[in-house]
Amino acid sequence: MPSSSTPRFQMFYWPSAFRGCFISYLFAYQEVPLLEEYNPDVIARLMSQPPGSQDIPFIGPPLLKDLKTGQTLSQMPAIVQYASHELGLAPSEPYAAAVCQKIIMDCNDLLMEICQYNGSRMWTREEWQEFRNRRFPRWLAVFEASLARGDIGGQTVTFADIGVYALLGNMIRCLPELEPDVQTHAPGIHRLCQQIGAKPSLAAHVSELEQAFGKSYCGGQIEASIREMLASDE
Amino acid sequence: MPSSSTPRFQMFYWPSAFRGCFISYLFAYQEVPLLEEYNPDVIARLMSQPPGSQDIPFIGPPLLKDLKTGQTLSQMPAIVQYASHELGLAPSEPYAAAVCQKIIMDCNDLLMEICQYNGSRMWTREEWQEFRNRRFPRWLAVFEASLARGDIGGQTVTFADIGVYALLGNMIRCLPELEPDVQTHAPGIHRLCQQIGAKPSLAAHVSELEQAFGKSYCGGQIEASIREMLASDE
Repeated sequence: MPSSSTPRFQMFYWPSAFRGCFISYLFAYQEVPLLEEYNPDVIARLMSQPPGSQDIPFIGPPLLKDLKTGQTLSQMPAIVQYASHELGLAPSEPYAAAVCQKIIMDCNDLLMEICQYNGSRMWTREEWQEFRNRRFPRWLAVFEASLARGDIGGQTVTFADIGVYALLGNMIRCLPELEPDVQTHAPGIHRLCQQIGAKPSLAAHVSELEQAFGKSYCGGQIEASIREMLASDE
Repeated sequence: MPSSSTPRFQMFYWPSAFRGCFISYLFAYQEVPLLEEYNPDVIARLMSQPPGSQDIPFIGPPLLKDLKTGQTLSQMPAIVQYASHELGLAPSEPYAAAVCQKIIMDCNDLLMEICQYNGSRMWTREEWQEFRNRRFPRWLAVFEASLARGDIGGQTVTFADIGVYALLGNMIRCLPELEPDVQTHAPGIHRLCQQIGAKPSLAAHVSELEQAFGKSYCGGQIEASIREMLASDE
């Protein structure tokens, strides 16, 4: 086996795509091997160590570890930017790179909103309607405007393009009831997600995640709460 | 007036230090002028524009605008990294820079936790006790371990050092009841905050914020809720 197929990086995340796929999709898109650890017992053990004993002091996954140097990183947006630099998916011009990072932060914020801040409470009908009818469309308009400005969807694919696909492509895969919302409020973004997801190496990886974890989204009681809201929206 | 004292950047934020100070402290520390707009009517007007009409499509402040080029950025962690690059406060080595960005994300997460996700609900006694007795000490241990590893507190001051001061120095200034928590669980971080805050240009800026906004923390009902919890902790 050639050394280039020996993964240099290992990712640690819960057994779902939710935040981890922002990282794994970058590697899959660039056809660079990545070791992936989704065993929840392993994750829970790493989390429960005292911060001084952890490879990097952290609160929650994902983690990315450089198996050559042992250097480890937590915090999805920091990992995405670092890995993108290694994988050739980050613009070199500082403002363009910052705008990509801003878009990843937007993705991260919307993830937090849909999962009610890591499930800190469940959805009520009233709050969900406010989210689906006002807040989610506003977020989608923000992404669509970013596309119109050329901050995403350009000639050269960046980590922001793949991040938007990790956010909305995965959301649509796991919660297909939301696809019409994306088509209505962000038709260009919907097309961008289809383009990014059509890359064969990435499509193969998404298929592997589907086989491993099905349509599991963020997991836990909060996923049940989202699905309950979606069912009663019908 | 020499052109070097004409601000190149303008920051837009609500009238408090909360997230904006992560940006303004960088400029103050480096003695680089920054135009600051804290008028809530201006902020509300910018936020309510359609995303396609905004200087950058965004949901909430802070914003940083380059007055020379018009290039604008939202999302505090993205702004901090970009401004730090311009101000000479970012490490050039990619992993070191990523670790600094990870620490800013940690700061951002702790801000979200103490303000209950932008005031999406109020504190209950039980949740506050869980936060103050377990979650906040764990976060402080994470920062203390980052200091022990040399990721902050090194010879060269970075945006991560200033970010930790923007988080905990400002928290202690506005909510002094929490200073003993920091001294107990992160004594080295407490000393680091004192060192960073002793820089005369930064101390002068903090004093200006205090004169303008007093000890206002995150504002709104959620600040009242935090203060109610602190009062009943006595």
